[in-house]
Amino acid sequence: MCTQLSTPGEYADLLDKFDTFMFDCDGVLWSGDHLIGGVIEALHLLRSKGKNILFVTNNATKSRKSYKKKFDGFGIEAHVEEIFGSAYAAAVYISTVVKLPKDKKVYVIGMSGVEEELHNEGVSYIGGTDPADTTFEPFDLKNFTPDPDVSVVLCGLDTNINYTKLSKAFRYLHTNPECLFIATNEDSTFPSTGGILPGAGSISAPLRYALGRDPVCTGKPSQSMLDCIQAKVHFDPKRTIMIGDRLNTDILFGKAGGVSTLLVLTGVTAKEEVLAPGATPIAVPDYMTQSIGDFAVLATPN
Amino acid sequence: MCTQLSTPGEYADLLDKFDTFMFDCDGVLWSGDHLIGGVIEALHLLRSKGKNILFVTNNATKSRKSYKKKFDGFGIEAHVEEIFGSAYAAAVYISTVVKLPKDKKVYVIGMSGVEEELHNEGVSYIGGTDPADTTFEPFDLKNFTPDPDVSVVLCGLDTNINYTKLSKAFRYLHTNPECLFIATNEDSTFPSTGGILPGAGSISAPLRYALGRDPVCTGKPSQSMLDCIQAKVHFDPKRTIMIGDRLNTDILFGKAGGVSTLLVLTGVTAKEEVLAPGATPIAVPDYMTQSIGDFAVLATPN
Repeated sequence: MCTQLSTPGEYADLLDKFDTFMFDCDGVLWSGDHLIGGVIEALHLLRSKGKNILFVTNNATKSRKSYKKKFDGFGIEAHVEEIFGSAYAAAVYISTVVKLPKDKKVYVIGMSGVEEELHNEGVSYIGGTDPADTTFEPFDLKNFTPDPDVSVVLCGLDTNINYTKLSKAFRYLHTNPECLFIATNEDSTFPSTGGILPGAGSISAPLRYALGRDPVCTGKPSQSMLDCIQAKVHFDPKRTIMIGDRLNTDILFGKAGGVSTLLVLTGVTAKEEVLAPGATPIAVPDYMTQSIGDFAVLATPN
Repeated sequence: MCTQLSTPGEYADLLDKFDTFMFDCDGVLWSGDHLIGGVIEALHLLRSKGKNILFVTNNATKSRKSYKKKFDGFGIEAHVEEIFGSAYAAAVYISTVVKLPKDKKVYVIGMSGVEEELHNEGVSYIGGTDPADTTFEPFDLKNFTPDPDVSVVLCGLDTNINYTKLSKAFRYLHTNPECLFIATNEDSTFPSTGGILPGAGSISAPLRYALGRDPVCTGKPSQSMLDCIQAKVHFDPKRTIMIGDRLNTDILFGKAGGVSTLLVLTGVTAKEEVLAPGATPIAVPDYMTQSIGDFAVLATPN
């Protein structure tokens, strides 16, 4: 049962019900480099009412620290400790759940965000933004000396993806069944300015297909992300709501974690995917509204 | 029921049963740049007995003409008209089954082999080896003007795969549900010197994943490949045998086409995948032998 919010009273009731608001970012606060209307006012309203705000993003291209700059650029108040990204969740998972020995390494398909978070967690890595792997030179196994210390392959969105990176990652995983295969997130696409583009799940897809095995995923909807948040922030699931634009990440994540869920329609999921007759959504949100900006109706005019 | 060949009599019987021998190449005749022992002798034996020989390969990186050079390099007798590649099958499929209008184009993820075969069939294309698409420059939709004439995306093995190519192909397919999605072949891996590497199926995997739709495949096991062969060569399926190293391409292809099948163990498939207790092979070959070179036992010493 999904409640569609429309009247100011309904928005006010929702605010009363929850203390902690977890926001997805891409498709909720902004779309590519376009700020969604009313977002600043809505977040300001929540802060003025003493609500806890958390930003829970599957974007793994940036560390939390550099992701904060994105908020700054939009003029959105945000603090590094409020930001939880899938690169951070992956790094925490590797250091605290996998407990990767200090002499072992991660082979990274991903961008600087993944590298920074691994570094911050004291995890050694190779690959990533290494210029030696950002190449169109033909990949030849004869010239590849695998690093015997690699025991994890971590894959996130990497817009420098290429055959050398895929081949190295594949060889680490294929030749060593003990090598862990971890993905920051499985989003098939992400909202960019002007439309959607292939997401992190599409970057790990060649490895899944070639290996015939699926990665452990640390981003939404995985509960590894929630474990990561719970280790740092106190929140009562009963008084917490996850707000997102995707059923198969945000809404599924909230439901699996026992928090309430609100779908906004400014990103990937269309209203019909939930409400059309015969629709079989992977998860049904508790609430739905067009945009986060809708909450701005509650703001007192200054 | 799979007959394991071992005695000279069994090899001789098999030769008597068939007139046309269809060979997969990678993993059967050679592995990467390593010729499999006895291949030249075995093929010479077949030719000396007047057998028809066809080479049926999913390798789409080379046109038939440039693929012949690979045979020449190994000293294997082969003729262009005996060679059927998945790039050729794709080009023939587009020109004769799709009947792509002359003013329409194919966006290619693939290498020169695909381009040459499309050109030979009179099909216009963009992408492919175009240096503008072989780039690590960030892909930005703002700078992308889709070609309105593109109505097919054709994807083959492309070792210059990158985010720009994936994004362009994704946008053509995502924004136009009428745009056809064709893959030369779906091999997850291919045998290279020193081990297997991600194959053509792994290159189209990001598009499948991002789009949530599968391509039409023209290489083995698709019968588009057999249609292509039948249009050019006469053979009696009852007296034809397909020889390959992969169950899910070669053996499935042969079985679906009503020809007999022989699995060799010099490539991807291991004996246990067919014969181990509890094994559930996707297709069971009629015959099995270690290597094509085994047929050389029948060669008369000069």
